[in-house]
Amino acid sequence: MPLRTKLALVVILLCGLIATSTKLYAQDAAQPAPNVVVNSDGTVQIPSYAVPLSSFLSPDAKTYVTDHMREMQDPELVKQDQGVPRFMKRYLERDEALFALERKDVSLGGVHTYTYSPRAGISDKNKARVLINLHGGGFSGCWPGCAELESMPISALMKIKVVTVDYREGPDNKFPAASEDVASVYRELLKTYKPQDIGIYGCSAGGMLTAMSLAWFQTHGLPTPGAVGIYCASAGAFGGDATYIAFPFGEGRMPPAHPPAQSQLGYFGGTDMKDPLVSPMNSPEILAKFPPTLLITGTRDFAMSGTIHTDAELTKRGVKAELHVWDGLFHGFFYNADVPESQDAFNVMISFFDRNLGTK
Amino acid sequence: MPLRTKLALVVILLCGLIATSTKLYAQDAAQPAPNVVVNSDGTVQIPSYAVPLSSFLSPDAKTYVTDHMREMQDPELVKQDQGVPRFMKRYLERDEALFALERKDVSLGGVHTYTYSPRAGISDKNKARVLINLHGGGFSGCWPGCAELESMPISALMKIKVVTVDYREGPDNKFPAASEDVASVYRELLKTYKPQDIGIYGCSAGGMLTAMSLAWFQTHGLPTPGAVGIYCASAGAFGGDATYIAFPFGEGRMPPAHPPAQSQLGYFGGTDMKDPLVSPMNSPEILAKFPPTLLITGTRDFAMSGTIHTDAELTKRGVKAELHVWDGLFHGFFYNADVPESQDAFNVMISFFDRNLGTK
Repeated sequence: MPLRTKLALVVILLCGLIATSTKLYAQDAAQPAPNVVVNSDGTVQIPSYAVPLSSFLSPDAKTYVTDHMREMQDPELVKQDQGVPRFMKRYLERDEALFALERKDVSLGGVHTYTYSPRAGISDKNKARVLINLHGGGFSGCWPGCAELESMPISALMKIKVVTVDYREGPDNKFPAASEDVASVYRELLKTYKPQDIGIYGCSAGGMLTAMSLAWFQTHGLPTPGAVGIYCASAGAFGGDATYIAFPFGEGRMPPAHPPAQSQLGYFGGTDMKDPLVSPMNSPEILAKFPPTLLITGTRDFAMSGTIHTDAELTKRGVKAELHVWDGLFHGFFYNADVPESQDAFNVMISFFDRNLGTK
Repeated sequence: MPLRTKLALVVILLCGLIATSTKLYAQDAAQPAPNVVVNSDGTVQIPSYAVPLSSFLSPDAKTYVTDHMREMQDPELVKQDQGVPRFMKRYLERDEALFALERKDVSLGGVHTYTYSPRAGISDKNKARVLINLHGGGFSGCWPGCAELESMPISALMKIKVVTVDYREGPDNKFPAASEDVASVYRELLKTYKPQDIGIYGCSAGGMLTAMSLAWFQTHGLPTPGAVGIYCASAGAFGGDATYIAFPFGEGRMPPAHPPAQSQLGYFGGTDMKDPLVSPMNSPEILAKFPPTLLITGTRDFAMSGTIHTDAELTKRGVKAELHVWDGLFHGFFYNADVPESQDAFNVMISFFDRNLGTK
């Protein structure tokens, strides 16, 4: 869309709320817009409609989002081979080409990790610092696929050591196995690093586990780390508007009508989901002790609402929360390092940890 | 929705991107979800569907959003009486009951303003500070309705003087009349206040004018103020996903299919919309000189995409941008001071100016 058209749209939109809207709509009377029905409980029934890609996306991202929605419609492409969803394979190949890293298999506190270091060396100021990555994958997979995609760009671009944790997942393991594993790795790293020099971050299940780990540390005598990143995730429930935006806009399918019963949920089977160790959002006291927290999402991410709600609650509790949302992008969009928006997100992540680690 | 259900949904959503989604959908095979069609240009064709209120809203906000969507469907209620949209009248009455303020008609630099001071007195630390409010209303109305709703809660709750500017609007006046008026008021206030002690903020057209004013000051020999708030607005184009979310989800109607030509747009008629004085987003150099900037929006605000894109661009230019997004809430939601989410937004606004004014 040319800029003049876009800016014309601005003014229409600015006028949308006020009296002129009546006039604007009257001009379109020959083709009346189909009605949205507002029910008494506030549910809106929306007629079938077409939604284009976000006008704010880069050309590369436009191709990326189109491809992603089509891939999400193919059940074969979301299957995992050795912990790597098929549609993510090409992102992993690109990371291997782009980022010169040394990867070591390391056991830390008895837990398996991959430890990445940039071949060009760790920067002077980052020698005293380390990042722990907790990978996405619904607590039931995506090791090592998601772990590598979340760790490699950050280790290389920030010139820092990143330890990504092969924490225990469902359905074979149950809560709190993953929290225990994160605590074991953290305790081991505390022998070398000060807590204020350790950052923890993750996307999706890994973002949720980052929040859960903070609650776990608080209740198990461990110090709070210097800063954390909760990406494409919440410190509690997801839900909200994002369910109804992200699936049709970002995944090419309708939202699930009936979530299966909790007993089917693998890792959290038998768990009291109200427990603040699972959902720190349920405890204002625990939230208030969060360190500086970076929150990242996109408007087509099914975790958007949970992410922004976490920002709102942390802010209310006096925590230094920093939120950034990318328009038109979906859950875990930055797994593709070639897209300019992913590079912007990496820069935000790196700047955040650089500003917030080691400052206590 | 009970918490257990919400948290069950979390895990479903976490699993959505990965292999388990295939299985989850298979369980629902008896009632297959209607298909979303993804076109080759990335446009999605979404079947008719029902969207409930956000699960994150307070009970008061649920009623508020339901009422708002119904009111937006009534052309009579969006009409203005003496600059007050009819549906906003009750919010104004509540502000008058809630906030004890002294309002003065003051001409500053030849421009008409209302100047609010709390009857309980300006706080000691705010005696050297002042806020300028630039009201919403599409550059064509909503004085004094929007001006009062944006100024009264902040003046009373922050215990600070707020000057809200009756700037010239369209269609009788054209760009840059409003920017000139803001500059005249600002120049007058600079005789009493230091620039770092002056904050500027506004919602919708007023948020856009806040950004435009910064560009105007930079090119007309005026210093940069201490901090600004761009609410429900962008420093450039709106557009993006929000157009397709906010109208059906937040205004009870479909997005306009064909924006009218630019010549119909009143205040910007005949203006080159690429001009950075209209759209600062077009100039990285101007953006880089923005002071700390607070950005506020909601997921059902048609300005959401523009607001979050402004945050992303400011952040990229090294500006201290602070973004907060409320789930399930619409354009200018905080005009209703009774809703808990509005009170949270006021607290964020007050804390932001308190932290950022007078710190240079």
